[in-house]
Amino acid sequence: MRPIGTAHTPFKEKFGAPRQPGIAPSARGWITLHPPYDDANALRGLDQCSHLWVIYCFHRTMDQPWSPTVRPPRFGGNQRLGVFATRSMFRPNPIGLSLLRFHGITRKEECRLHVTGPDMVDGTPVLDIKPYVPYADAPGGAWNTLAPGTPELLPEPSFTTEAAEALDEIEAANPGFRALLIETLRADPRPAYHDDPARTYGMHLHHWNIQFRSTNPPDTRLEVTAIEGV
Amino acid sequence: MRPIGTAHTPFKEKFGAPRQPGIAPSARGWITLHPPYDDANALRGLDQCSHLWVIYCFHRTMDQPWSPTVRPPRFGGNQRLGVFATRSMFRPNPIGLSLLRFHGITRKEECRLHVTGPDMVDGTPVLDIKPYVPYADAPGGAWNTLAPGTPELLPEPSFTTEAAEALDEIEAANPGFRALLIETLRADPRPAYHDDPARTYGMHLHHWNIQFRSTNPPDTRLEVTAIEGV
Repeated sequence: MRPIGTAHTPFKEKFGAPRQPGIAPSARGWITLHPPYDDANALRGLDQCSHLWVIYCFHRTMDQPWSPTVRPPRFGGNQRLGVFATRSMFRPNPIGLSLLRFHGITRKEECRLHVTGPDMVDGTPVLDIKPYVPYADAPGGAWNTLAPGTPELLPEPSFTTEAAEALDEIEAANPGFRALLIETLRADPRPAYHDDPARTYGMHLHHWNIQFRSTNPPDTRLEVTAIEGV
Repeated sequence: MRPIGTAHTPFKEKFGAPRQPGIAPSARGWITLHPPYDDANALRGLDQCSHLWVIYCFHRTMDQPWSPTVRPPRFGGNQRLGVFATRSMFRPNPIGLSLLRFHGITRKEECRLHVTGPDMVDGTPVLDIKPYVPYADAPGGAWNTLAPGTPELLPEPSFTTEAAEALDEIEAANPGFRALLIETLRADPRPAYHDDPARTYGMHLHHWNIQFRSTNPPDTRLEVTAIEGV
């Protein structure tokens, strides 16, 4: 197995990356195909798919041991599930699978497959690209009672005056960053266990470091306290 | 990467194995998990899914070179598509992906995950098992105009008198074999190019060798001429 390409996403660290694809649809990214896999012939017909399967390597955690059970954040860390019943990255083989919305191919210095909604960390090695085949991949009546629907989202985050001003400035030069930040925070990047409610978290999104904290219960929204260039 | 298990299916050879999962829903199979991956804890919660993603190795063809373009049988071998726009096994990394209906776990001498609709060859090494997560894996409005629906099926095959008698006998001892054979033949296992319409094909299904041939046009059905134990 060798990488055929590299995924480029706004998520510079595991912390803050969405836990499933499509959770942050405003996240734009691309897969750069390495030669010889960037051959235009190898991509012929791919434009006839709305979505791509991306099979990749959990490279940041591949040296860590797998665990038979994991505590998915979806359940607040309160439920132990078998690793094969989850999409956890701490698996026997560090293989990730994400279905991404596909937006076409560009070729300048390199061949890029443009996608939205990625959940992988920037720099992830890609092992394979496959087309979505609805009749085989989305059979009628398939269900998963552990994940019956999209995870619940937090309300929109609030911003301190300084953070709001910084965001306005960034958004003016980088349209779409606001939507991406809001989607990322509404998905609640905090670890399942919040032992310290007063903690300020730092998240690295594109070229910015975002600081945020919990607001006081019962307000469940997060508050962004600072946005700074990295 | 090392196998976590082995897929057991009725398809003893590549020829005759369905070209996508679910095409032969009467095909029953199982994945035997190897120690230590057969730990009951690692499977906790899997019974809450109707379908499993199975990621596996195309072990029969992994030593063959990949090809930038392939001619999928769906188009009668008349259309060249990029390998990344197809599920062809001649890929840069020999990784297969199939969504299979899941029917539970048994543990006697070994741990088995029971499935129906497999399209992999018997003995395929399995690299990972993941749960189906409908909201991430089946987004609304996803499409593929190259494979807009299930492939067209041939009419039910006909049987010579000898083959029909052999099938009756096998079915009595192995209920479901008839349905599996009919589904397999209706999916048309013949290669895309039929240079010799008079050719008799042999297919190895479970413990039987099935011989069949084309009928005369315009009758598109296949005719089974012999069924013999292997």
